[in-house]
Amino acid sequence: MDPKPTQLAAWKRIQGLTEEAAQEHLRHLLRDPDRARWTRVEAAGLQLDFSHQKVNPAILEQLTALADEAGVFERRASLFAGEPINTTEGRPALHPALRGQGQAHPPWGQHIQAEVDVELERCLAFASTVRARELLGWSDKPIDTVINLGIGGSDLGPRMVSEAMACSPAVRPLPQHPTVHYVSNPDGWALAHVLRQCAADRTLLIVQSKSFTTQETLTLFASVRRWFLDSGCPEECIGRHVAAVTANPSKAEAHGIARDKTFHFWEWVGGRYSVWSAIGLPAMISAGPEAFREFLAGGAAMDQHFQTAPPAQNIPLLLGLLGVWNRNFLRTPTHHIAAYAYGLQRFTAFIQQMDMESNGKRVHLDGSPIGVLTGPIVWGGLGIDGQHAYFQLLHQGTHPSSIDFIGVQSLGSPLPLGGDHDHVVAINFQAQQDALALGRTHAETLALLREQGMAEDDAVRLAPHRVFDGDVPSLAITMKQLTPQALGALVAAYEHKVFVQSVVWNINAYDQWGVELGKTMAKALEP
Amino acid sequence: MDPKPTQLAAWKRIQGLTEEAAQEHLRHLLRDPDRARWTRVEAAGLQLDFSHQKVNPAILEQLTALADEAGVFERRASLFAGEPINTTEGRPALHPALRGQGQAHPPWGQHIQAEVDVELERCLAFASTVRARELLGWSDKPIDTVINLGIGGSDLGPRMVSEAMACSPAVRPLPQHPTVHYVSNPDGWALAHVLRQCAADRTLLIVQSKSFTTQETLTLFASVRRWFLDSGCPEECIGRHVAAVTANPSKAEAHGIARDKTFHFWEWVGGRYSVWSAIGLPAMISAGPEAFREFLAGGAAMDQHFQTAPPAQNIPLLLGLLGVWNRNFLRTPTHHIAAYAYGLQRFTAFIQQMDMESNGKRVHLDGSPIGVLTGPIVWGGLGIDGQHAYFQLLHQGTHPSSIDFIGVQSLGSPLPLGGDHDHVVAINFQAQQDALALGRTHAETLALLREQGMAEDDAVRLAPHRVFDGDVPSLAITMKQLTPQALGALVAAYEHKVFVQSVVWNINAYDQWGVELGKTMAKALEP
Repeated sequence: MDPKPTQLAAWKRIQGLTEEAAQEHLRHLLRDPDRARWTRVEAAGLQLDFSHQKVNPAILEQLTALADEAGVFERRASLFAGEPINTTEGRPALHPALRGQGQAHPPWGQHIQAEVDVELERCLAFASTVRARELLGWSDKPIDTVINLGIGGSDLGPRMVSEAMACSPAVRPLPQHPTVHYVSNPDGWALAHVLRQCAADRTLLIVQSKSFTTQETLTLFASVRRWFLDSGCPEECIGRHVAAVTANPSKAEAHGIARDKTFHFWEWVGGRYSVWSAIGLPAMISAGPEAFREFLAGGAAMDQHFQTAPPAQNIPLLLGLLGVWNRNFLRTPTHHIAAYAYGLQRFTAFIQQMDMESNGKRVHLDGSPIGVLTGPIVWGGLGIDGQHAYFQLLHQGTHPSSIDFIGVQSLGSPLPLGGDHDHVVAINFQAQQDALALGRTHAETLALLREQGMAEDDAVRLAPHRVFDGDVPSLAITMKQLTPQALGALVAAYEHKVFVQSVVWNINAYDQWGVELGKTMAKALEP
Repeated sequence: MDPKPTQLAAWKRIQGLTEEAAQEHLRHLLRDPDRARWTRVEAAGLQLDFSHQKVNPAILEQLTALADEAGVFERRASLFAGEPINTTEGRPALHPALRGQGQAHPPWGQHIQAEVDVELERCLAFASTVRARELLGWSDKPIDTVINLGIGGSDLGPRMVSEAMACSPAVRPLPQHPTVHYVSNPDGWALAHVLRQCAADRTLLIVQSKSFTTQETLTLFASVRRWFLDSGCPEECIGRHVAAVTANPSKAEAHGIARDKTFHFWEWVGGRYSVWSAIGLPAMISAGPEAFREFLAGGAAMDQHFQTAPPAQNIPLLLGLLGVWNRNFLRTPTHHIAAYAYGLQRFTAFIQQMDMESNGKRVHLDGSPIGVLTGPIVWGGLGIDGQHAYFQLLHQGTHPSSIDFIGVQSLGSPLPLGGDHDHVVAINFQAQQDALALGRTHAETLALLREQGMAEDDAVRLAPHRVFDGDVPSLAITMKQLTPQALGALVAAYEHKVFVQSVVWNINAYDQWGVELGKTMAKALEP
């Protein structure tokens, strides 16, 4: 059996280094002019800057040793070789194959790659047909609206990509392209608001469910079916209006969905890793096949980087190890992701699922009780909105949080005054990281209040309320533009980060038994 | 000076009770048939059920004693009397006055109430004019679209109310009522997507900023101004298209906004408590004056309840004290809010600001360093979406979280199959609370796998991965329908919960100095 992480020699060495490192304030660390040399890494269109993490070269070296000792490098080879690393379900976790298009010798074998490529081309061709308004509804009018039904992984991934690409100067969907709506929540109001905006005879429904038994999605499907019929669609024409994406095509067929509109993916794709598969179909329609291929290429570039870059330049490895450092040694229970680009409005929610569903576990691979803290609570959203809402607690609360700042150097919105907007975002991106790291001491605060001419009594009374302890660790991931490639690389980087942490913690990132009991108990409440 | 909370006698008594209570599993607690008697409270259209909290009558009694000893009841009187309880800014926190309409003897005095009432009537009259399409743009066409610019408290509150009321069977905005868009983020893409949907000569802009110096909002304002001009609006007609809501009307005037379209609120309204003031204007327009009055009445009913109900039946007091129990004694660092109604999609984000900006503090009122953990990290969203995303970690992760389940008994969406949707939401609402509390033991899991016919080896190997420890504390707040009254009562209940906790922790819930340093450092990066 695998040893407990805490029994590894590197783990113990890191523990020995922790107290001193924890006490060294970021204010001091950031004074070192040499720091930029070893805390900046570029790859696959992304730049990682971890200068604002509470690490030094000795800790970084031991974290790399920990990865080695915990078997990260061997397990990485197993992941890409398609070995059944999802041991509780006896399956591989082969999402890298989904973006492996065109590789001469894919490590997971030609057979799998061929299947993936065929299905991808089917999806992209269908997306092109819909975008070209060549798909006709029951009244022979072209389809111009798409409703995607799906929840969890069948919603968050494609929705996030659709939204991001709608804010990419490199993509810019045209007005004639179809409008894509996403509905996930089974409360009928979610669907009612969307149906109100759609003409039934010009609407395509995509039903996404890995098992095709998801109660929430099937309930929504029944209501949309009813809506088509009530709007005048002849029963025999419903097939023109419904597509399915599933790993269980016979179930979709049982629901009357045509084979040529049923797109497959495989049991070895976890829902939260499925955006690269046919689950991406609504994003292929909204952003276009070309953008989607570039998104896949960005993911593939990150796969290549993760497999070949040396540890000190390996972005996903560093993200994972810094996460372990914050989590297990600096004891930070939550991890915040702040995105400084409106297109990334759902990015945190997407990573929240990926990370928490993967690493929210409390048994080791062999079933023994966990000996370490595993995946953190991931939260956040758009950074600038957060500054006006919950950042108060990050600056002056009693709860530590580590923070990832995600930034885009040139947002490039099509406003006449767009440059001013980019500038406001850019200065806040930088200022928040520095303010959180550096803080403002009592002496500095008191001096400032006096300088502002505050009466001495008031200055003395108020200064403690206006002190910032600082020392909040963060890192920045930036890209030049919000391109499909950069987004693909970013998503894959987080996937591999989560994987690295699961190996260190010796848990299975690819099952999700924790969702089972609630479903069973809900079923028992059925009449 | 006030004593530290940890030095209070009741605090120490609770500490003495904690270990035993922490060890008593919710599975055992919930077996007590008598439990429903003292864990259910109804008031102001809300039902609170805290049977799934790890408390017993002895702890509840001591928590009430703690409230007493910490001065909650006196401070409650000070709050409602308009005393300057925001000591670091020398102001009262008089948001209850905003919903005090029509009181014969308001505790904060007739003068304040009269000012509030006048401004409320101005706002509601303006909203009526806009809804009736009687406001004309530069081309004399009626205004039919509203864009609200504001961030933080000038965005989250009215946006949350607008969205909720759009999903209320009691409100149902009509198609002829204006569309209201909200833009908060300064990345130009946020605004560009909205402008694309609007005709400039039929659009009203509302600029919301307490100080009227908020950089993000003013940058957006400049671009919308440019858009009006570029769309053909004569410079001298821009006044027809712009309204302002601010506590600094002279600044709005300096920006050329007409006095009859400038609506005031007061320095004593914190941004996160301002939804009841003129800041609610876009929600008054989208949901209507009648619904907004009912929303205020719901808040006032909760104020009345909070001031007069005995502790054991006092919803906000119980919410606050149970929060302290989870936070300080059971050591739960995060608090999750899961809403089971699509209309409440932004409710968690709204409460997240209210709670974290209020209680994310680390000095006591007198400026001495904090001796206890204060406000938790608040996170969550729509419960059913969460079940398919991050609930895995709540069920099987290593991080404790306390949970508020918010439910609506009759969602009442206008779908032909609406009842099926309501049913799916209802069974999940109940099943998740029970699953999280009860869990499933190793023996139960093993028996189940055997019953399902799994081979013995596999059953033994897999059972640990499929065990649920349970014992996750939650509470449920439910309402019959998502009416404006119930929503108002719910928001006010959380405001008072946050207040109760701030008194116990002896901190100032009404300042937010923690947002200052980032702003200063951003300003220093200006060219």
